[in-house]
Amino acid sequence: MQLYGFWRSLATLRVRIALNLKRIDRKEVMIDLVSGAQHATDFRDINPQGVVPVLIDGDGPALFQSLAILEYLEELFPQVPLLPTDPRGRARVRGLAQIVACDSHPLIVPRVREFLEREFHLSEAQRLTWIRHWMREGLRAVEAHLAHDSDSGDYCHGDTVSMADICLVSLAVGYKLFDGRVEDFPRVAKVVERCMAQEAFAKAHPLRQPGAPQAA
Amino acid sequence: MQLYGFWRSLATLRVRIALNLKRIDRKEVMIDLVSGAQHATDFRDINPQGVVPVLIDGDGPALFQSLAILEYLEELFPQVPLLPTDPRGRARVRGLAQIVACDSHPLIVPRVREFLEREFHLSEAQRLTWIRHWMREGLRAVEAHLAHDSDSGDYCHGDTVSMADICLVSLAVGYKLFDGRVEDFPRVAKVVERCMAQEAFAKAHPLRQPGAPQAA
Repeated sequence: MQLYGFWRSLATLRVRIALNLKRIDRKEVMIDLVSGAQHATDFRDINPQGVVPVLIDGDGPALFQSLAILEYLEELFPQVPLLPTDPRGRARVRGLAQIVACDSHPLIVPRVREFLEREFHLSEAQRLTWIRHWMREGLRAVEAHLAHDSDSGDYCHGDTVSMADICLVSLAVGYKLFDGRVEDFPRVAKVVERCMAQEAFAKAHPLRQPGAPQAA
Repeated sequence: MQLYGFWRSLATLRVRIALNLKRIDRKEVMIDLVSGAQHATDFRDINPQGVVPVLIDGDGPALFQSLAILEYLEELFPQVPLLPTDPRGRARVRGLAQIVACDSHPLIVPRVREFLEREFHLSEAQRLTWIRHWMREGLRAVEAHLAHDSDSGDYCHGDTVSMADICLVSLAVGYKLFDGRVEDFPRVAKVVERCMAQEAFAKAHPLRQPGAPQAA
């Protein structure tokens, strides 16, 4: 498999973690979002939306959107399952994942920050206010669910890692990169700590990828 | 079943269409997003995130997030399937649905518009620019996929209605409510027209719900 991503892309991070958990080999191709490589014709030929991540499996067409890729991996590689077996549990895990992947993360991606700057002349400080606000709102919503729902456990759903944890980790990692305090959300912080203690999560971290500032 | 929603909520619209297509009876409860009923304690007890839609099936806990609800309905009520049977097809349909539900729609919901006004003092005209821009970006991305992918057909994926069409319709309906021209995206416009010719879609339209301005 080939994973098109970028070291700091939080949506790519989700796919990277899932591939690690399921022990699936792949080559990772970095699309430099800073220089605008996602808009180049050769990448648009792969993904006409011009965003990462994209996964290529064999000679099939490109798979796009991180949660759709996770579901695909789950269907084809059921080892280390990332969804429970009961429909209500699956719905809860997907719902928690979507709080991150729909309601929080898409608000803070580079194209949105660039639009706020270009169109409304928001300062860097204002853009940071924006980013931290929507990340915090996502963390707050997951924290509220973890406190509210009887299915919460060592992880978001019971005592097994799921897509919800993968998404939550992507949000928490991003929040820390923007100097946010994940500890403000104690249940979230515990789940994230438990995940990051595992090599499949830890080695997927943005700062451990090629091209990252702190990477060797 | 009980569906908590709001007449003009585009995420609720998706669930309403799926319930119609699958001929599932439900009672719809309107949560007035204008007066802030989604923040009231009694609704937060149902959904701690304080957003719609929410679906209650029997005495189980509330189901939340529109795409998670669609997947739940698909698993329990497979009649009138909303996903293809092959994993690559399922991934493509989910990916298209997520272009709408992740990358476009969450940017234009009331809480985001309110934040832009309250925090950055954007004018109504600027907020309209914002809304139309992100809706257009979603439509542009789906249009590009419809043109690019060999699996496109009468509908987003082949010649059968899927979750992708449901999400696309929700975006197109919203774009029209904000005076956008869906015809600027010819492939999208054809799919949407084909869907809206069906009663399951047409009767789910925001303006045909109780509380809508044009409703009887």
